[in-house]
Amino acid sequence: MPTHLEYFTHGISEEERRTRTFLEIGRRAGHFPRAVARTDGSESEVSVWCSNDYLSMGQHPVVVEAVRDTVARFGAGSGGSRNIGGTNHRHVELERELADWHGMDAALLFTSGYTANDGALSVIAGRPEGTVVFSDERNHASIIDGLRRSGARKRIFRHNDVSHLAELLADTDPDAPKLIVLESVYSMSGDVAPLADIADLADQYGATTFLDEVHAIGMYGPQGAGIAAREGIADRFDVVMGTLAKALGTVGGYIAGPADLIDTVRTFSRAFVFTTSLPPAIAAGALAAVRHLRSSDAERDRLAENARLLQRLLDEADVPYLSADSHIVSALVGDDALCKQASNLLLDRHGIYVQAINAPSVRLGEELLRIAPSATHTPADVQKFAEALAGIWRDLEIRTASDRRDAAAKGAA
Amino acid sequence: MPTHLEYFTHGISEEERRTRTFLEIGRRAGHFPRAVARTDGSESEVSVWCSNDYLSMGQHPVVVEAVRDTVARFGAGSGGSRNIGGTNHRHVELERELADWHGMDAALLFTSGYTANDGALSVIAGRPEGTVVFSDERNHASIIDGLRRSGARKRIFRHNDVSHLAELLADTDPDAPKLIVLESVYSMSGDVAPLADIADLADQYGATTFLDEVHAIGMYGPQGAGIAAREGIADRFDVVMGTLAKALGTVGGYIAGPADLIDTVRTFSRAFVFTTSLPPAIAAGALAAVRHLRSSDAERDRLAENARLLQRLLDEADVPYLSADSHIVSALVGDDALCKQASNLLLDRHGIYVQAINAPSVRLGEELLRIAPSATHTPADVQKFAEALAGIWRDLEIRTASDRRDAAAKGAA
Repeated sequence: MPTHLEYFTHGISEEERRTRTFLEIGRRAGHFPRAVARTDGSESEVSVWCSNDYLSMGQHPVVVEAVRDTVARFGAGSGGSRNIGGTNHRHVELERELADWHGMDAALLFTSGYTANDGALSVIAGRPEGTVVFSDERNHASIIDGLRRSGARKRIFRHNDVSHLAELLADTDPDAPKLIVLESVYSMSGDVAPLADIADLADQYGATTFLDEVHAIGMYGPQGAGIAAREGIADRFDVVMGTLAKALGTVGGYIAGPADLIDTVRTFSRAFVFTTSLPPAIAAGALAAVRHLRSSDAERDRLAENARLLQRLLDEADVPYLSADSHIVSALVGDDALCKQASNLLLDRHGIYVQAINAPSVRLGEELLRIAPSATHTPADVQKFAEALAGIWRDLEIRTASDRRDAAAKGAA
Repeated sequence: MPTHLEYFTHGISEEERRTRTFLEIGRRAGHFPRAVARTDGSESEVSVWCSNDYLSMGQHPVVVEAVRDTVARFGAGSGGSRNIGGTNHRHVELERELADWHGMDAALLFTSGYTANDGALSVIAGRPEGTVVFSDERNHASIIDGLRRSGARKRIFRHNDVSHLAELLADTDPDAPKLIVLESVYSMSGDVAPLADIADLADQYGATTFLDEVHAIGMYGPQGAGIAAREGIADRFDVVMGTLAKALGTVGGYIAGPADLIDTVRTFSRAFVFTTSLPPAIAAGALAAVRHLRSSDAERDRLAENARLLQRLLDEADVPYLSADSHIVSALVGDDALCKQASNLLLDRHGIYVQAINAPSVRLGEELLRIAPSATHTPADVQKFAEALAGIWRDLEIRTASDRRDAAAKGAA
């Protein structure tokens, strides 16, 4: 029998051994979405079409300068956990700004979106004992992990399916404390949840609502406060969770909500307590980004225009994509090898970088190219991209949108 | 019955509601360990004695400049997870440097030390099925959380107790895959593990060894490679885990080890896969710090001198502390309220900031002031600090070292 260590060299299957190859790139600040890709020692210029820095705020002068100034002033790291020497002025200011942005009492920073969901839900879902959690089946890995860690009883509702959620709520002990967890914009499919209907159900059943707006904050609604704000129902969600790593261009995550709940998470979340806080310079960069995006619509307008143009061009080219609800345009390939091949061809032929998304990030048969236009792509870039993608769809004979529709109609007939 | 949300305003106990108050400070780059503390709107200068930026590398010009230059070049954030657009040249270079530092095949970056332990151990301890983990009872929360998440069977050995570990190993199925998890320098007590003896046991029982050197890397051994390196036995540990947030002055964590094991973690660790990577600028700052500390002994020598001087002065003042093994000098108070009071007096009277460490970070009755001298405290600072602490010990009538020794002798008689 192999030892524990021998297992890792001899005991794992070929499928497990399958290596994820990461493309090494240097995004060029001031020239986003352009980047230099390095493969096998040689370099080439690429246009990045899969970045979550959707608004290119990572290169915005107000953000870059805030980071640079703050490093010079306070140093590179915070030096400790929030409780032990690691609370800088910028953490406090950013938490105030985020709370104000979302119209909440208070906010709490984590070092990543993953730990924000994992760390917050491990506490919120775990209290009080007997809490039943209702979770969308497509919720992000970090939500799933936090709920698991909480030990709460979980009931999974079908993706964005309000009737199914209503059924599960009706079928649960009326006295049990209830928590509904959902995202506004889903990361891989780009579709938007029926927020008002879910808020209605939450009211009816006295459930707390935890809304992950990671792919929405900065990009939708007045001052970029998110999809719930766009719908005018931000106040119907109890806890909002967001990230500093996407529209805000830096790194980190947060929750905002009622003071007592935030305080409970602050005291008991192990992922919060037992970790060094974000560098003050990163908090300062995110703060500059939020302040800018609260007063400027230019970036989100450009992103929305790019997304609309891309969707129109893909419609014309008969390339299937999952949803037109948001700026995330996921082109459906539906085959592991083809998906990888399409990604490689885009890079090699056109200098376009879109990562192939295969299992386990999506289900088998749902392999896709997750296309994320940015606010700094030009209309000409979008045009060029759509043509490149259409050409690859033809050359690799990937199933078209109309082919899929026909097959679905036949299946239904 | 209250709803889930009402629980957080009405249902939690006073003890649970106890708020952790975080002292808000701005460390002054170029003047560490000095900082400006802000309380109730007023500001005062303090000397920080509880920072984990032990070597003050967070303010070192090579680190500050690396961060500033890299932000200007690549922007503030990475823009994605490592697999989806977020692998920058600096991540790759830093992983190579860390692997080389520890004499390992490969290394893998995480966004924090917490997620490095949590994310790596959730995979390493969980494979292959049937793995039995032997874990020191004082291991850090992040280790405990990662082991829980792995689902592996755990056997807890008494702190640094080689005989107990031997007993547990002998008492376990010889064919079961085995993993021993320990720290070199323990965070709260500052004592050092008997590494050679544990490596002997690992050899004897064919166990993999996972060594957390978070409070040691940069500070001990040739090139600062850690305690195992200092003992000349770095090659006897299979996986080493470290942080970028303490001696390296930035933020983030890593593991280094055999290529196949690292690759498995890279592929399956959810805390790694589903998270935005570190900002390239942070990776660049940490890289500059490692390179500097591999060639310069000055910082660790200064830290060691300060620790020795402080220990001598506390001995003379009859102030009890837990261990003289390392630079972490934890003065034992042993009472929740007294501990908080001592911390407050140090701040108010002397402008010295040392956080009181109470449960749950330490056990009840083991409340302490975790004193961390830095490489930038002067001998005069150390002298002043020891005098201040001795004065507070007298004024608050906290138990002295000789009193504790006498009581222990009586108890034993």
